[in-house]
Amino acid sequence: MKKALLVLLLATPMLAQTNTPTLSVREWRLQHERAILDELITLVSIPNVSSDRPNIQRNAEFLVQMMKKRNIPARLVSVPGASPVVFGEIKTPGATRTIGFYAHYDGQPVDAKEWASPPFKPTLRNGPVETGGKTIALLPAGKTFNPEWRLYGRGAADDKAPIMAMLSAIDAIRAAGLQLRSNIKFAFEGEEEALSVNLEKILAANKALFAADVWLVCDGPTHQSRQQQIHFGARGVTSMDIVVYGPRVDLHAGHYGNWAPNPADQAAQLVASLRDANDRVLIDGFYDDITPLTETEKSAIAAIPDIDGQLMRDLWLGQPLGAPAKLAELITRPAIVVRGFDSGRTLSQATSIIPSTASISLVTYLVKGMSHEDTSRKIIEHIQKQGFFVVDREPDGQVRSTHAKVAFVRVRPGGYDAVRTSMDLPIAKEVIAVAESVRGPVVRLPNMGGAVPLAMIERPLGTVTIGVPIVNHDNNQHSANENLRLQNLWDGIELMAGLLTM
Amino acid sequence: MKKALLVLLLATPMLAQTNTPTLSVREWRLQHERAILDELITLVSIPNVSSDRPNIQRNAEFLVQMMKKRNIPARLVSVPGASPVVFGEIKTPGATRTIGFYAHYDGQPVDAKEWASPPFKPTLRNGPVETGGKTIALLPAGKTFNPEWRLYGRGAADDKAPIMAMLSAIDAIRAAGLQLRSNIKFAFEGEEEALSVNLEKILAANKALFAADVWLVCDGPTHQSRQQQIHFGARGVTSMDIVVYGPRVDLHAGHYGNWAPNPADQAAQLVASLRDANDRVLIDGFYDDITPLTETEKSAIAAIPDIDGQLMRDLWLGQPLGAPAKLAELITRPAIVVRGFDSGRTLSQATSIIPSTASISLVTYLVKGMSHEDTSRKIIEHIQKQGFFVVDREPDGQVRSTHAKVAFVRVRPGGYDAVRTSMDLPIAKEVIAVAESVRGPVVRLPNMGGAVPLAMIERPLGTVTIGVPIVNHDNNQHSANENLRLQNLWDGIELMAGLLTM
Repeated sequence: MKKALLVLLLATPMLAQTNTPTLSVREWRLQHERAILDELITLVSIPNVSSDRPNIQRNAEFLVQMMKKRNIPARLVSVPGASPVVFGEIKTPGATRTIGFYAHYDGQPVDAKEWASPPFKPTLRNGPVETGGKTIALLPAGKTFNPEWRLYGRGAADDKAPIMAMLSAIDAIRAAGLQLRSNIKFAFEGEEEALSVNLEKILAANKALFAADVWLVCDGPTHQSRQQQIHFGARGVTSMDIVVYGPRVDLHAGHYGNWAPNPADQAAQLVASLRDANDRVLIDGFYDDITPLTETEKSAIAAIPDIDGQLMRDLWLGQPLGAPAKLAELITRPAIVVRGFDSGRTLSQATSIIPSTASISLVTYLVKGMSHEDTSRKIIEHIQKQGFFVVDREPDGQVRSTHAKVAFVRVRPGGYDAVRTSMDLPIAKEVIAVAESVRGPVVRLPNMGGAVPLAMIERPLGTVTIGVPIVNHDNNQHSANENLRLQNLWDGIELMAGLLTM
Repeated sequence: MKKALLVLLLATPMLAQTNTPTLSVREWRLQHERAILDELITLVSIPNVSSDRPNIQRNAEFLVQMMKKRNIPARLVSVPGASPVVFGEIKTPGATRTIGFYAHYDGQPVDAKEWASPPFKPTLRNGPVETGGKTIALLPAGKTFNPEWRLYGRGAADDKAPIMAMLSAIDAIRAAGLQLRSNIKFAFEGEEEALSVNLEKILAANKALFAADVWLVCDGPTHQSRQQQIHFGARGVTSMDIVVYGPRVDLHAGHYGNWAPNPADQAAQLVASLRDANDRVLIDGFYDDITPLTETEKSAIAAIPDIDGQLMRDLWLGQPLGAPAKLAELITRPAIVVRGFDSGRTLSQATSIIPSTASISLVTYLVKGMSHEDTSRKIIEHIQKQGFFVVDREPDGQVRSTHAKVAFVRVRPGGYDAVRTSMDLPIAKEVIAVAESVRGPVVRLPNMGGAVPLAMIERPLGTVTIGVPIVNHDNNQHSANENLRLQNLWDGIELMAGLLTM
């Protein structure tokens, strides 16, 4: 017990500086680590790929039970065709304001072959799997877990950990006899990884239910320095699938090579046309509508610890894009990412063909001022300017025979715009102050790089959002081997307790 | 019976012009179609992916049995580590020359999901599967099959059909009482689709056994006009796999997009750098060593029926590369084909990541004068000129961290050079004359587009090769749904009988 505690002390240098309520939350957590993990493991065991509706429903119902077990009135709220938002509420006598806590319980698709352990069989490891972390058994109740151990599973970090942190914080607050001062609302979404296509509709149809002075959005990772981070917005997003067509069927590469156009070439040329050698996007008008950063935002960026060099070494990257600007600044600019490119077959599967099609999946991250509809339109116009005849459905033989280059472009539904909440609002300053009282100095990020549907919360409810993420930056979010570092969960419980009692 | 024969007559307008021995071969075949197909179906039922050694061995042993059944002495010839060449020989009393017949019995890899019927469960259809051809039962012995029906299966066309044609021709020759005038040798290779890595070694180690005045190479398709084609060479080939590296693990596209280099972009830029807007390859020195076409070859090309327009419509292509040159001329030039490009995931599988790697598989077809080793070297130098640090094994973190762009390039073993046999040789003129006596005017192609390891036959044996393909051009060779049009098999039997008796 003493040895484990020592490790914990070394890993959390802010311990001595924190406040008394936080210490009592921590004391409670140290006694209940096994129970907290057991509940999280049960939650992560329920498969949560957004498109898997039956299991999404099982997740939602389990979350209702988790809240009801804590005497928090909870229920599912939805609109036809949507996965439910799990809603819970704690009314605080005499409170004059309401603070909302948002997280999502759905996850990205999984390819089980790529995982070191099954994505929905949560597995504890004594370190990151990339550096040889081995499967390890859970400790008995009452024991303290090594905080560098990690729990692997889809959704373990993104975004079930924050839900576990909020509800554990409620347990800790009650056990420590701390008092809430605001009304509290919880909203756990089930379609965030499917671009929150129904969130705005659900909120708009239930305005009073979801009304709050601020919604704290508990998604995304903390800073790469492991320092607590607060973000005041997120990039928007629009996604697009492009299929480029060659011959009707795959052709023998030798018999027809030099004569039959190759869609892999055409798709590669299209991708290459998107940006110049300095990674500046060459789509006409792409940067036109961007809202410049304020002086407060610029100085917040300047104060962010420079972790780029360390991150590059960790990620085996020789040279970042956009230097000398640092990561925190680069994510306040829009980005087009080729998230997938597929044509023919490669390596051991390669056959000597000219492929019939090439597919590209693009995801574009937008910043404040940009419209996702306009941006999608500009991208399509760019594809047309590269000589493609663009169609919005799979082209038939007639279309393909009569155009030199044909692209089927499908803008995915559910794109949304970026949000950047002013750091100078009183509630923004209060959240910073509470977080610093619990976790020491915080990183203030004008917007995070990932997309969160903040606009879909702010717009229907007329409220503001502030992001308070808790999970480790190296959680392999959206990839295989997603994981949660235990210390991040423990820190998250303390942070949530502070925000719940503000 | 009469109705079926009528269809046959319509489909073979050359019938009236052909010679008497051919008519007797045809008469025999008309009585034995079911038996010929039964034997071919049994042969195609044996899986023949080059890398599947146990089944390759089963194919080889079955071929030996097929020859022995015909009293043709046959055996397996190999070197350590190689799949066997099946060798058979017919000695003709008084013959002063030897004619060799080459084909291969191995096939390209299959992805059964992409096939309309299982690749190794040969299936007869009443037309091409792409135009709705339906599965159809075999007719009883003695009945005549509709010659437009097709047999589906890996290897049905490439390259088991020619083997069946040769051995059926032997049966027909004997049944019709026709005489051989030359010694005959058969060589059926088991590694052609694996780039014939051992063929030259096997021939060099058995020079006397394989000695012949000419080897007739029965691989590849006939002309797209369905006219008989003779080719006097084939392109050479060299294949290469390229892996481009990004971050150590897939990264969240939002959190790191704009900062982390994307290997999909780098790979696309590399592909785009390979050629200009007119499809001219931009690799330094790529075209330097090419032997120009002779006047005979140029006039042979000029005489080839222009099927490009029809082929484009069939293949749903809007505009060919290299116009106004026609296909027959374009394949006398080298081609680099991107046969596969893979990074991240697309369409329904797409996730919002920056991929960790991008893979490209290139196959380069060479023409007479080019060296495959030099060409591979020039491609690698081109990759280096695009700013890549090129390594010949999977790079470690140290290498990846210290270079902006890293490419692991692996030249596949087994590349070989092109061959172009002079059309003015006496044996070349004789083969043309025999083929025209059986099949009417033939297309003379200086080299075919696909690669066949002719150099590996010519070099160790000091002989020449001439290509006499029989299968339909639209056989989906190397792709899913490979198939053989029955009329091509029937014509092939007649052609082989003519060549066997020359």
